[in-house]
Amino acid sequence: MIYVMGPGHGGPAAVANSWLEGSYSQVYPDVSQDEEGMRRLFRQFSFPGGIPSHVAPETPGSIHEGGELGYSLAHAFGAAFDNPDLVVSCVVGDGEAETGPLAASWHSTKFLDPVRDGAVLPILHLNGYKIANPTVLARIPEEELVKMLEGMGYQPLIVSGSEPASMHQRMARALDEAMDRIAAIQRQARQRAGRAGRSFERAVWPMVVLRSPKGWTGPREVDGLPVEGTWRSHQVPLSGVRSDPGHLRQLEEWMRSYRPQELFGDSGAPVAELVALAPEGERRMGANPHANGGVLLRDLVLPDFRRYAVEFDGHGTHTSQATRVLGCFLRDVVRSNPDNFRIMGPDETASNRFSEVYEATDKVWQEEVLSTDEHLGRHGQVMEVLSEHLCQGWLEGYLLTGRHGVFNSYEAFVHIVDAMFNQHAKWLKVSRHLAWRWPIASLNYVLSSHVWRQDHNGFTHQDPGFLDVVMNKPAELVRVYLPPDANSLLSVADHCLRSRDYVNVVVAGKQPALDYLSMDEAVAHCTRGIGIWEWASTGGGADPDVVLACAGDVPTLETVAAADLLRQFFPELGVRVVNVVDLMRLQPAGEHPHGLPDAEYEALFTTDRPVIFAFHGYPWLVHRLTYRRRGHENLHVRGFKEKGTTTTPFDMVMLNDLDRFHLVIDVIDRVPGLAQRAAHVRQRMVDERSRHRAHTREFGEDPASVREWVWPY
Amino acid sequence: MIYVMGPGHGGPAAVANSWLEGSYSQVYPDVSQDEEGMRRLFRQFSFPGGIPSHVAPETPGSIHEGGELGYSLAHAFGAAFDNPDLVVSCVVGDGEAETGPLAASWHSTKFLDPVRDGAVLPILHLNGYKIANPTVLARIPEEELVKMLEGMGYQPLIVSGSEPASMHQRMARALDEAMDRIAAIQRQARQRAGRAGRSFERAVWPMVVLRSPKGWTGPREVDGLPVEGTWRSHQVPLSGVRSDPGHLRQLEEWMRSYRPQELFGDSGAPVAELVALAPEGERRMGANPHANGGVLLRDLVLPDFRRYAVEFDGHGTHTSQATRVLGCFLRDVVRSNPDNFRIMGPDETASNRFSEVYEATDKVWQEEVLSTDEHLGRHGQVMEVLSEHLCQGWLEGYLLTGRHGVFNSYEAFVHIVDAMFNQHAKWLKVSRHLAWRWPIASLNYVLSSHVWRQDHNGFTHQDPGFLDVVMNKPAELVRVYLPPDANSLLSVADHCLRSRDYVNVVVAGKQPALDYLSMDEAVAHCTRGIGIWEWASTGGGADPDVVLACAGDVPTLETVAAADLLRQFFPELGVRVVNVVDLMRLQPAGEHPHGLPDAEYEALFTTDRPVIFAFHGYPWLVHRLTYRRRGHENLHVRGFKEKGTTTTPFDMVMLNDLDRFHLVIDVIDRVPGLAQRAAHVRQRMVDERSRHRAHTREFGEDPASVREWVWPY
Repeated sequence: MIYVMGPGHGGPAAVANSWLEGSYSQVYPDVSQDEEGMRRLFRQFSFPGGIPSHVAPETPGSIHEGGELGYSLAHAFGAAFDNPDLVVSCVVGDGEAETGPLAASWHSTKFLDPVRDGAVLPILHLNGYKIANPTVLARIPEEELVKMLEGMGYQPLIVSGSEPASMHQRMARALDEAMDRIAAIQRQARQRAGRAGRSFERAVWPMVVLRSPKGWTGPREVDGLPVEGTWRSHQVPLSGVRSDPGHLRQLEEWMRSYRPQELFGDSGAPVAELVALAPEGERRMGANPHANGGVLLRDLVLPDFRRYAVEFDGHGTHTSQATRVLGCFLRDVVRSNPDNFRIMGPDETASNRFSEVYEATDKVWQEEVLSTDEHLGRHGQVMEVLSEHLCQGWLEGYLLTGRHGVFNSYEAFVHIVDAMFNQHAKWLKVSRHLAWRWPIASLNYVLSSHVWRQDHNGFTHQDPGFLDVVMNKPAELVRVYLPPDANSLLSVADHCLRSRDYVNVVVAGKQPALDYLSMDEAVAHCTRGIGIWEWASTGGGADPDVVLACAGDVPTLETVAAADLLRQFFPELGVRVVNVVDLMRLQPAGEHPHGLPDAEYEALFTTDRPVIFAFHGYPWLVHRLTYRRRGHENLHVRGFKEKGTTTTPFDMVMLNDLDRFHLVIDVIDRVPGLAQRAAHVRQRMVDERSRHRAHTREFGEDPASVREWVWPY
Repeated sequence: MIYVMGPGHGGPAAVANSWLEGSYSQVYPDVSQDEEGMRRLFRQFSFPGGIPSHVAPETPGSIHEGGELGYSLAHAFGAAFDNPDLVVSCVVGDGEAETGPLAASWHSTKFLDPVRDGAVLPILHLNGYKIANPTVLARIPEEELVKMLEGMGYQPLIVSGSEPASMHQRMARALDEAMDRIAAIQRQARQRAGRAGRSFERAVWPMVVLRSPKGWTGPREVDGLPVEGTWRSHQVPLSGVRSDPGHLRQLEEWMRSYRPQELFGDSGAPVAELVALAPEGERRMGANPHANGGVLLRDLVLPDFRRYAVEFDGHGTHTSQATRVLGCFLRDVVRSNPDNFRIMGPDETASNRFSEVYEATDKVWQEEVLSTDEHLGRHGQVMEVLSEHLCQGWLEGYLLTGRHGVFNSYEAFVHIVDAMFNQHAKWLKVSRHLAWRWPIASLNYVLSSHVWRQDHNGFTHQDPGFLDVVMNKPAELVRVYLPPDANSLLSVADHCLRSRDYVNVVVAGKQPALDYLSMDEAVAHCTRGIGIWEWASTGGGADPDVVLACAGDVPTLETVAAADLLRQFFPELGVRVVNVVDLMRLQPAGEHPHGLPDAEYEALFTTDRPVIFAFHGYPWLVHRLTYRRRGHENLHVRGFKEKGTTTTPFDMVMLNDLDRFHLVIDVIDRVPGLAQRAAHVRQRMVDERSRHRAHTREFGEDPASVREWVWPY
């Protein structure tokens, strides 16, 4: 069993118990089981250089960061998936229970297989108050509460009261009953699973509702106002101990009420009778390896991604759907790692073109299955729920307990989990500095159905800003990849699945798009992360008059097409095409481990030629990464300027001045001396834009000349 | 009654019905009620230059953007607050019902006053499928579903079937029953409210569960596969109409099945019998003024903010808690606008120091009230629920129906609603281009408990990145203010409460902090948005050797203190202090309406002197805003570098090199010639940092020398 603590400031429960059972001192030998260790234990609490008041990476036995509320139950279910022998007990605070992510998490049982997954035991703790207010679930009639929980598929066991001794007994009985019920569900389901032709029985899982006073066993009254059982016990019930002798005396009485002289020996260590209560070794709550998942982490069994390469007989001569190609690779990753790899998606896995994975696995589903349903199964490695919060929370729990996975999402809606991403990145940053926490698999996002291809969904689905959120987190943690085609996506995905302790964000298109690189070229290009595309440049890109840079599949198409137009109009113009896969390469070497040294950056971009950069996201992100580079004043970035609507892909790039014609205009306007002699070409580009926009408005699709364009050399 | 449509791609229901009742053609005269208008109506659907498939700003009668799912019910409740005669019917799709925000929204009834608020009628539409998967609520046993809804406080009326004629009758009966029940609840509550001494009765609100086939009355089978009643009807059931004569025939049969010849006259207009069904005038679903809230918008009655000014007898001689001062102003805004202004907070309103508002209003709460509770009331203008999603969704619904409000949040956790902010900004952008949509009150965020003052909460509570998310939205919509002290916060708040169609983000501290400006100075400074603080500069800031810029309360304190140190150490050094309140002033004038013209920017920052900028948020945001300015290469920004932990305020700024000592070091390192002659000062600054860090680690608090510092001149 592992223990997930949802309540804010719930850290002391885990820290103190871990110290009592000895696991804390094993991890932190200076916080020893004696008087000096106890002093350190107390003093470090919420103290500069110490530990947070929430459960945190620093807390042995925790996979859960308790600072931002809402994710405990999703983390708990994530930990239970593919862990058939694990029970995750999860305390949900009644404050946290008001959050959206937590409210959605109750339904996670609909995705939990009693045969091959473990169990979650939710303990809804109604102490009645959040910071300064009563909580909803503690104040509704108990009859309603029970109906709600039964309606969400649970059998609630209620433990309610304020007398400690009897409450402990009742809680113990409730836990026994819950564990027996869990065991019965699992036994029955696993026996049936072994027999042919037996129907599936739906599990109703137990849970505990614990109703106890807030600030229980703390001071009843302070300065004449009730504290125990009210919101006043939320933070520091006795705030005047330094100056108010009454407060100090009350604090001492309160502390003495626990009779420490009976609990600790002369050295400060807990007495033997207490120590004997705790389990031993890895069964201790602070020592369970599931809560330090890196310890259990097995490498993924990965097929050779090169096997999935698209056929290639020239740069830009064929088209593929990048994510569909990746889907074939993922299908075999699924197959080779049946209990160690999951794909999460908010009902978008098929829409993002990963359907090939259903050749290898089902979508997990514990409710009724109809004859018209496809690919639903009691067990499955794909999880589809229309909640980005649940996808993220489940995956975090799965990764933190030592497994691997991918979260695929529409690009725009991954913003829904910005805050969860932030907290996971913070967890990783702290964990990396704790030698006893072993590295875990990276959190991999594949963002598809991206800003440039929301032809029918329109403006609400057009938002590439997650990259900006990601880039605010420390350089040692975050990686952003924009593979331009199918082969480079395969190479990037393989790299991400092998990595540890990162957040990898991969943006990839799902629509048919040109294949630019052979597999060997893609591997070489992705390994460098950035490079000159000689075949798309004039004269191999040597001594350019202008640099056309690009990152992202659609900007790359427009850039390569612009290079082609420039070659036709100005055969003597030196054009260099630079493609960026690994966005971090743009940063100075001192800012990011992947950052290019200045000399290499300048060798690619020059220091004195105009650079027209076609970027997938908001253009200023590129400026933010490059403002320290020499020649930055020559850099002109085109990207998404929040000009979006329901329209065709080519109309979208025109709306944002990222289209091939506008890139040619940008070159004409910026290469010294070109504007005078190229006025007719410039005008032709302006006319082409008008013509294409008119065509789109008339026919609702891009002109054939744009759709059918392929690299002609 | 207004109608909120949650289901994705639910736009046609509103658009078609609005056209049938005539309100659509009133707003869009070219989409007339005749054959040509009907052609335009159909053709614009999900077509370039046309309208989205979701409900959207373009949809008359809608306050709800249907592109990103999860917010329909929160919007509906927001619309109902303080609208006692309004019923908001809200269709919740069973896909949307899986999201966290929607799951949390059911409990909104706990905050709805039957006396002074209107009603919400949720209609949970179980058509069984999301994009490619069954939905949870459609597949659980109906007994469980009913329990769940009853447990969440509703009386569900179930309408289930597939035979259109009888289903219409049953749905009508269910709606009649629901409306009668709503009327009875309101009548009873309002009668009781008029009588003294009568106890409160808890309302159990009606709702409808509508179970009907997905793709209802569409093609039953296509190409031998079932479509009606399955996930296959999600998008385009007949995709081959252009090339497959069978598909085309089936499409025609399907369309003819609705017997258009009976519904429309020769001109293409609906027949009189149909037209007579719709209500008239503003009762039509596309013409209700509540759904075009700007029409109903009344200006706030605002007291003179200058009345709340803190006493001032010198720059930096006293301290105030800025948000507490703002709370006094807000208290009187609340008082003067009892049915037109609400404050939303995720249980943080008191923590953010706005408690003074409770002198004027209660926190709204419909559940049991205990004798130990404070400031809870059946009606109240403060709404406290531990869900940022609900706070944001309620406020959006409230604003969109023509009222005013403020959302106060811990700075870090406002990231929880990044995606909702994005969608609201998109709504505003589109609305501004629709002449018939009237401007609404701005969405005002007050972010407190910010990154620099999370002394005990630590790293999880330290994240200033919302500003970066906000800055990705169009310049005409977003405003970011960082008032340095209490008086400037008052001035900014007054400005925000008077504004329209913006998103205003105000970051303000809640801890005691120096008052830098008199009220008159604050008004002048905030009106300019940026300016030289002569009193903190040497020689009034004329002809500086170095510019110290700052934005945010804590960075301003460190900057002013650094200027003081520099004056002591280098009396001959020209130091200019520039404070930035309105972050948008940093952008070029061509990029933002508030952007400073280059000449003014250069007059403040110079083009050739080092600028050390102490910034509240991530430092690269300042670079992003200023990279085009002359002299940008001299700009050195200090800000939050994701170095956080549980520690004191001064330790936090030291961790991120933003402290006064490091700013002095930055000046020494960057002013030409200073480094050589100031080596001893530099070393002293290094030593001060070490000494202060050691003090903090030892005593858990900042040294008195730092805490008690005030501007000495």
